[in-house]
Amino acid sequence: MAKKINHLLKAKENYTVAGTLWIEHEGERCFGVGRMELLQLINKTGSINKAAKEMGMSYKKAWNMISNLNTQWNEPMVITQSGGEGGGGSSLTEAALELISHHTAMRKRFLHFLATEKENLIHL
Amino acid sequence: MAKKINHLLKAKENYTVAGTLWIEHEGERCFGVGRMELLQLINKTGSINKAAKEMGMSYKKAWNMISNLNTQWNEPMVITQSGGEGGGGSSLTEAALELISHHTAMRKRFLHFLATEKENLIHL
Repeated sequence: MAKKINHLLKAKENYTVAGTLWIEHEGERCFGVGRMELLQLINKTGSINKAAKEMGMSYKKAWNMISNLNTQWNEPMVITQSGGEGGGGSSLTEAALELISHHTAMRKRFLHFLATEKENLIHL
Repeated sequence: MAKKINHLLKAKENYTVAGTLWIEHEGERCFGVGRMELLQLINKTGSINKAAKEMGMSYKKAWNMISNLNTQWNEPMVITQSGGEGGGGSSLTEAALELISHHTAMRKRFLHFLATEKENLIHL
């Protein structure tokens, strides 16, 4: 168990433990909160362009993120159909939905870890 | 338990789960790997200046980090003595050693968390 250090805290309610988490493939980030948000917005809007706009990023950047995703994993994550009545659009694959589900569960465990570490720090 | 997604991995040995962790005080970072390294180098060298040089940062930046540390926690972390035969020098307080010890233990738990998440991802 961690040794109590709450005598070092000024007012324990003002402290927290924070962090970030991501998955790497060959040493490069291949999934984290950014790509997660992008996929969710593509799922919601049916469009890489609209998703990029909602995130305040360029279409080119979003397209690069998707392009990397599609090569870093064994299955494509986003399918884009061009033309047609609705002018095409993008949608997520089953693989993307599975990855989102895994990431959501991992994120929940991470938030639990952070909360536990906050308890370890401040020993409420 | 996490749902198996290892069919999404190209070659499972190439994936890992990575992250960073820090302590915040009033929404601002007040301890993490950077300050940890700085304190350890001050402990080793007895000098903020030498510690800063080893980390490739300016004396001013290191001094600001120490100054913040000394106000974000309830006790000073670094004591600097000026003048004297040896030209003064800096040393860590007992509080700093306790904080380092806590951070080391927290970091160890975090690395364990990351390793577990890697297992969850690749289901070896």
